[in-house]
Amino acid sequence: MQATTLIPGNTLLTATPEEGRQLAMKMARLVIKATQPDDAIRGKLRDVYANDAAMLLQVGQTVAAEFATIAAANNHWRG
Amino acid sequence: MQATTLIPGNTLLTATPEEGRQLAMKMARLVIKATQPDDAIRGKLRDVYANDAAMLLQVGQTVAAEFATIAAANNHWRG
Amino acid sequence: MQATTLIPGNTLLTATPEEGRQLAMKMARLVIKATQPDDAIRGKLRDVYANDAAMLLQVGQTVAAEFATIAAANNHWRG
Amino acid sequence: MQATTLIPGNTLLTATPEEGRQLAMKMARLVIKATQPDDAIRGKLRDVYANDAAMLLQVGQTVAAEFATIAAANNHWRG
Amino acid sequence: MQATTLIPGNTLLTATPEEGRQLAMKMARLVIKATQPDDAIRGKLRDVYANDAAMLLQVGQTVAAEFATIAAANNHWRG
Amino acid sequence: MQATTLIPGNTLLTATPEEGRQLAMKMARLVIKATQPDDAIRGKLRDVYANDAAMLLQVGQTVAAEFATIAAANNHWRG
Repeated sequence: MQATTLIPGNTLLTATPEEGRQLAMKMARLVIKATQPDDAIRGKLRDVYANDAAMLLQVGQTVAAEFATIAAANNHWRG
Repeated sequence: MQATTLIPGNTLLTATPEEGRQLAMKMARLVIKATQPDDAIRGKLRDVYANDAAMLLQVGQTVAAEFATIAAANNHWRG
Repeated sequence: MQATTLIPGNTLLTATPEEGRQLAMKMARLVIKATQPDDAIRGKLRDVYANDAAMLLQVGQTVAAEFATIAAANNHWRG
Repeated sequence: MQATTLIPGNTLLTATPEEGRQLAMKMARLVIKATQPDDAIRGKLRDVYANDAAMLLQVGQTVAAEFATIAAANNHWRG
Repeated sequence: MQATTLIPGNTLLTATPEEGRQLAMKMARLVIKATQPDDAIRGKLRDVYANDAAMLLQVGQTVAAEFATIAAANNHWRG
Repeated sequence: MQATTLIPGNTLLTATPEEGRQLAMKMARLVIKATQPDDAIRGKLRDVYANDAAMLLQVGQTVAAEFATIAAANNHWRG
């Protein structure tokens, strides 16, 4: 059973690209939370990747992938 | 011969984005199970990646990729 | 000249998502076989990646990418 | 709460491919800024990846992914 | 100036998925050839990655990405 | 301010797949140039990745991603 919510609001639709980008970052984080539910361990690991150049770039890669899906869901907010 | 089920329910269609995200995580795990069927070894390796910042980020990258496919299959749950 | 078959059956079309997923795993393996045709070496390398957390995650990433293409080819099995 | 702006102008639409590419680079950087808000630390990490061949290639991979989304949003600037 | 041919036949269209997959492998190799034109060095590096589990998986990832584009170009060979 | 041109000709449209592939390689390089503008440093780093098997594979991965976008922009040169 999956206890962690994986998608806040249970929708990919957002009002703006900025909110879509925030959702991408949250979705990326929630996968990590579901995989490592211990808050203390996750806090330590966050310190690791937030201070490591290669890992920060890896965060960027994942957020880019999540955002691509969200942007498609929102028809790229083209109105 | 492939003994492990790779897609629970044999469908990419889910009722909600949240369930689609759960499916993405399950599909990612089942590839690992099919590649390393030994439960004890997999359990040890899970401890490794759940406590390693770079590997947790790698989990996120894979789930993002699986989810992109599932979201497309569900027409992004746009109704 | 390419001796290894790269796509079993020479088609991306499968009856079900499960079979599509199996095809994704096979296609991923056949690229490795074409790149390293020596069965003994490949067997040793398989032992390496099946027992390494980071490499198992990398397998997952590749299968996800192959599956995205197969799913698109099958119109996501939406009937 | 997300303090960093993640998408300048809150739109994926740009007049030209060149501007779309600049946006891709900015969006990639802003994820890093949101994840590591300390300017001094980020400056040091930038020195690290700007002088490391593998990390520069990783930057390229992320920008490529961001740009794919922006290009799709702009219908590839086909007029 | 680019001396190496990057796409044999200057087309993404192939008669079959198998040929499309072969093209994906060739296109992946030709980028490496264009980046490292020295045959002797490339031969040594090929020995490296053909005998390294992680690098073989990386080959698989790149071929998957090239193939996705070729498959889309061929409308997934759906006739 | 972005001094480096990121997309030569400011268009993703090319006459042929071969030219599209050349553009993909150029676009990948120009991101690196924009991130590391020092020619001498970039020259040294180029020697590093052109002689490293894993990094050459990483170049391939990025070019594949850039090319996917260019190919889509050109409707895969299907006429």
